[in-house]
Amino acid sequence: MNDGLTNVAVVGATGYAGAELASILKKHPHASVTGLYSSSDFSLDAVTSSGAEVVFLATPNEVSVHIVPELLDRNLKVIDLSGAFRLASPSLYPTWYGFTHEQPQLLGEAVYGLPEWCNGELKKARLVANPGCYPTSIILALRPLTYILDREQPVICDSKSGVSGAGKKSDLAWSFAELYGNFKAYGVGTHRHEPEIRQGLRLGDRAMLVFVPHLLPTVRGILSTMHVGFTHAVTEDEVVAIYEEAYANAPVVKLLPPGVLPELKNVVNTPRCEIGFHLLQCGKRAVIVSVIDNLLKGAASQAVQNFNRMFGFAETEGLQ
Amino acid sequence: MNDGLTNVAVVGATGYAGAELASILKKHPHASVTGLYSSSDFSLDAVTSSGAEVVFLATPNEVSVHIVPELLDRNLKVIDLSGAFRLASPSLYPTWYGFTHEQPQLLGEAVYGLPEWCNGELKKARLVANPGCYPTSIILALRPLTYILDREQPVICDSKSGVSGAGKKSDLAWSFAELYGNFKAYGVGTHRHEPEIRQGLRLGDRAMLVFVPHLLPTVRGILSTMHVGFTHAVTEDEVVAIYEEAYANAPVVKLLPPGVLPELKNVVNTPRCEIGFHLLQCGKRAVIVSVIDNLLKGAASQAVQNFNRMFGFAETEGLQ
Amino acid sequence: MNDGLTNVAVVGATGYAGAELASILKKHPHASVTGLYSSSDFSLDAVTSSGAEVVFLATPNEVSVHIVPELLDRNLKVIDLSGAFRLASPSLYPTWYGFTHEQPQLLGEAVYGLPEWCNGELKKARLVANPGCYPTSIILALRPLTYILDREQPVICDSKSGVSGAGKKSDLAWSFAELYGNFKAYGVGTHRHEPEIRQGLRLGDRAMLVFVPHLLPTVRGILSTMHVGFTHAVTEDEVVAIYEEAYANAPVVKLLPPGVLPELKNVVNTPRCEIGFHLLQCGKRAVIVSVIDNLLKGAASQAVQNFNRMFGFAETEGLQ
Amino acid sequence: MNDGLTNVAVVGATGYAGAELASILKKHPHASVTGLYSSSDFSLDAVTSSGAEVVFLATPNEVSVHIVPELLDRNLKVIDLSGAFRLASPSLYPTWYGFTHEQPQLLGEAVYGLPEWCNGELKKARLVANPGCYPTSIILALRPLTYILDREQPVICDSKSGVSGAGKKSDLAWSFAELYGNFKAYGVGTHRHEPEIRQGLRLGDRAMLVFVPHLLPTVRGILSTMHVGFTHAVTEDEVVAIYEEAYANAPVVKLLPPGVLPELKNVVNTPRCEIGFHLLQCGKRAVIVSVIDNLLKGAASQAVQNFNRMFGFAETEGLQ
Repeated sequence: MNDGLTNVAVVGATGYAGAELASILKKHPHASVTGLYSSSDFSLDAVTSSGAEVVFLATPNEVSVHIVPELLDRNLKVIDLSGAFRLASPSLYPTWYGFTHEQPQLLGEAVYGLPEWCNGELKKARLVANPGCYPTSIILALRPLTYILDREQPVICDSKSGVSGAGKKSDLAWSFAELYGNFKAYGVGTHRHEPEIRQGLRLGDRAMLVFVPHLLPTVRGILSTMHVGFTHAVTEDEVVAIYEEAYANAPVVKLLPPGVLPELKNVVNTPRCEIGFHLLQCGKRAVIVSVIDNLLKGAASQAVQNFNRMFGFAETEGLQ
Repeated sequence: MNDGLTNVAVVGATGYAGAELASILKKHPHASVTGLYSSSDFSLDAVTSSGAEVVFLATPNEVSVHIVPELLDRNLKVIDLSGAFRLASPSLYPTWYGFTHEQPQLLGEAVYGLPEWCNGELKKARLVANPGCYPTSIILALRPLTYILDREQPVICDSKSGVSGAGKKSDLAWSFAELYGNFKAYGVGTHRHEPEIRQGLRLGDRAMLVFVPHLLPTVRGILSTMHVGFTHAVTEDEVVAIYEEAYANAPVVKLLPPGVLPELKNVVNTPRCEIGFHLLQCGKRAVIVSVIDNLLKGAASQAVQNFNRMFGFAETEGLQ
Repeated sequence: MNDGLTNVAVVGATGYAGAELASILKKHPHASVTGLYSSSDFSLDAVTSSGAEVVFLATPNEVSVHIVPELLDRNLKVIDLSGAFRLASPSLYPTWYGFTHEQPQLLGEAVYGLPEWCNGELKKARLVANPGCYPTSIILALRPLTYILDREQPVICDSKSGVSGAGKKSDLAWSFAELYGNFKAYGVGTHRHEPEIRQGLRLGDRAMLVFVPHLLPTVRGILSTMHVGFTHAVTEDEVVAIYEEAYANAPVVKLLPPGVLPELKNVVNTPRCEIGFHLLQCGKRAVIVSVIDNLLKGAASQAVQNFNRMFGFAETEGLQ
Repeated sequence: MNDGLTNVAVVGATGYAGAELASILKKHPHASVTGLYSSSDFSLDAVTSSGAEVVFLATPNEVSVHIVPELLDRNLKVIDLSGAFRLASPSLYPTWYGFTHEQPQLLGEAVYGLPEWCNGELKKARLVANPGCYPTSIILALRPLTYILDREQPVICDSKSGVSGAGKKSDLAWSFAELYGNFKAYGVGTHRHEPEIRQGLRLGDRAMLVFVPHLLPTVRGILSTMHVGFTHAVTEDEVVAIYEEAYANAPVVKLLPPGVLPELKNVVNTPRCEIGFHLLQCGKRAVIVSVIDNLLKGAASQAVQNFNRMFGFAETEGLQ
């Protein structure tokens, strides 16, 4: 294992996720922070001359699209927390992101950095697309089950997020007085994380995915409740075995005993994901619940997991 | 219409729902409150001698089971907010409520008081079983659609409630420090409202119902997100027409325009139910969202709607 | 008593206080709402031609200053919820409000509408300046005690308000993510309510007033904790007698027993003010706590009390 | 400096403060946790045989009174987070704590562990009384000013705490539904922290102290607003100089610039105390605001500061 020191910079360090990231990296035993920049005061020359080897981007999608090729040209590695490089197919960007992707070749190169589902590719990656918060909570819970999922039945993801997921907002709709004591669904059929979930679960075009995000009256955390059917009846022991095999080497993913569902506070302010399941209809269906901290496993700590794997550090270095 | 004054008493007036009920009845232009009792200081003689004609029970299930026959014997009418008389089949009580029902004949007589789905029967009723809060939010949203629901597909009800639904709790698990900033699912497969929803939706034994209640970090309100499939593709206009016909005479039920989903704060501190829907898969599926105030439309104001109908007052008398 | 119907209009009906006001007036048995306007879509002609006799202004200070003389010119009565006419001395406006008052003669005419401290003047008033929320909570609690207050000692008002007091805010500082779980003091020495409190308590220029407002992580309600010294030792009975005399005819002010301090939830969503006191130092000092709903007794319901008094209706008409 | 490893045990590790303490100590580079016990499953023999050299007690007052002499007899050092040994005078215990102190000689020996105001005594201490949360927030803010405080004027401490300060509560009054959206003062004249504050500020018996704690609708954090008069007018620079001298070597205490008052979120989840002041009346008075996390600087991290000083580690070891 690498026990050296790697120079890192963060662009977008003033947002909620960026600030968490900066805070983790400053204490990371194998990282040396050479620069922290906001999305607006950033310059390529400043980053390059700071001596950074890897740059974390907690920037808007449009900013990331433009910056990434320039950083790569200067031989810097990039871990991008935006959605700009998460979807493998450029054709999805106009529909879901509202712009034509100018760097389609990089979409092919970018590694989708859900570290529990990456193998050696992170070691060689120049560009890592750090997953979205909702997709992280859903893909970690459902990916192990994909080969028993009945694709004739809809995969229903009823997700609930704290409001920090939207970033810093100067907007009446995000004011305390409007959100306190409130709860609502939003973005049904239009949320950008929907194609990312479909891609991450290998659902293809035909399988039905229903993704309904909701806004919780709290700041941090995502809880996703997933409703799925299986191709054949399974037992609790079989499901446990599937998850245990999938996450045998995943230090931040924890499966709860059958029938026990995790609650949000288990993971707030931690880098962990917890997953629980409850079988229904004699094992032909299940309710699966996962929880993460959207700013950590859904953003900053996941980026650090990716960093650790890219540079050969222990996966949870800096995250305990 | 009746413009007289009816004598009413409330037992269980110190709980959250009971207090709301007492507050509404005190201002009701056609009700005269002859007595307010807690579940523990109540006596049959006190109620009878108070001159009450109708008694509202906001009491535990076990208390209601015992009190109701005695009140009926004394020729009082009863509106029971507990679950003691909601299920038509006595055989469900041991499984879901943990006791053998001692008054099975009254289960046959009790009117399930979801007033939007009652006709003349409330006028003649001696005993009204006021619906549960979750069932109210779900049945109002799905009952109009029952004849187009595809019963081969699961009816999935992902519900979220504020904590007042549990009543006054002296319990660490319900303390502020434990629930603030938290969110969790609970009671999957065991919640007493599940058979009530199944009954209210006429699902029979075969159709698959998945009911997952969650606890929101707020005090009041229920939002239910329902995921259903239809037997054939429908248009938005068809769905609107179905709801409009069902609720043409329902002053507290409001349908939002297609694609607009209601939020909790729309209805908190009101007697209203709001419903919104979003069609998916070319009209073969829908996400339906409904919101109510669990203490009002989910309990107290619904009881007053029933009272109004029983005694021939305007349905929203006392509720504006 | 008047039992007729008065035509009223509301300008600024889309803000938090304005919406409460509109809601109360719509149900008021002696008011007929002829128009509801936002601050921006308002026109004098529209208001006049609507037939309104009295206009409620829930508008910014600068808007009220300009509108009020024009409304008075057209023989309309005005109840202004802004601060534009609360201070009797024009010389205070540049310092505290940042503008030179253009209608100094109207400052002399305006009635400061804390109804519990008004006599016949509301009946004759053309222009009522509805008090600020903090001043209402403080003046109601301390005004009865002014003649025993030791003016050699500072009058300390440590007030805490829910965030709706600031109105609808599109501002990061007022976002849910910034305020949830937070608490802070603000505006020490600069808050516009400070000269209004000094005026309402008849403190003159010499007596020391310390006013420290704080922002509570909730939406509604103000709790003011006041620390005062007396010129001589008093007994609990004497203090009770003072308050009882002051508020003998004040239906929305409630004094709690000695030593019992009110809590916020007692009054949220009600038009009431509750006051409690605790004597210290053998009766030479006291801690006094008052609570109101800032949008009701601190704004909308107080405006309706003023309306009721102006037109000869019972003081709490429309407020129960 | 010591760079060895010290064996520590925690009794009361299941409470909120105890759990924070256990969490810090497990990651502390110079501590080895030999045992974690709840207040009820604790035995002296278990602690002794675990090899612990120092025992942290996060236990009820009555438990600490009994355990401490036995632990000392076995040559263990004790850091007690309860109030059992905080007051130097045994005569205060019957009045404020409701029991006659059985170990008055230990009250003389115990070091009051507000580390910023301790010198060498922690190094030699066998028994440290870790300060209360409210006293910590108040004494840190006012102790530097004691020699300019005008003791003829009352020292007014208007404090507001999150609900975790009360510990884990199975009690309706502490339930979510009762506290959400609420705010109240409590314990005026009877709170146990009042004599501790008086002692910590060296106020003697004559000076007037007013301490009014309030309960905030959040979980963590204390903000104290203090209102004081000075014996002579001071300038901002003089006050800054006083604080800077007092806290030159205090790594977790931070003074804000004159006129800037700290907010709660600055310190939640940190071991820091922030202090701000605002001069009034030409420097004859001030409003002073301090903030801490009640479970950290008000309990657990302060106990670790004491531990670090007792054993010669850097003061913030394990706290970054």
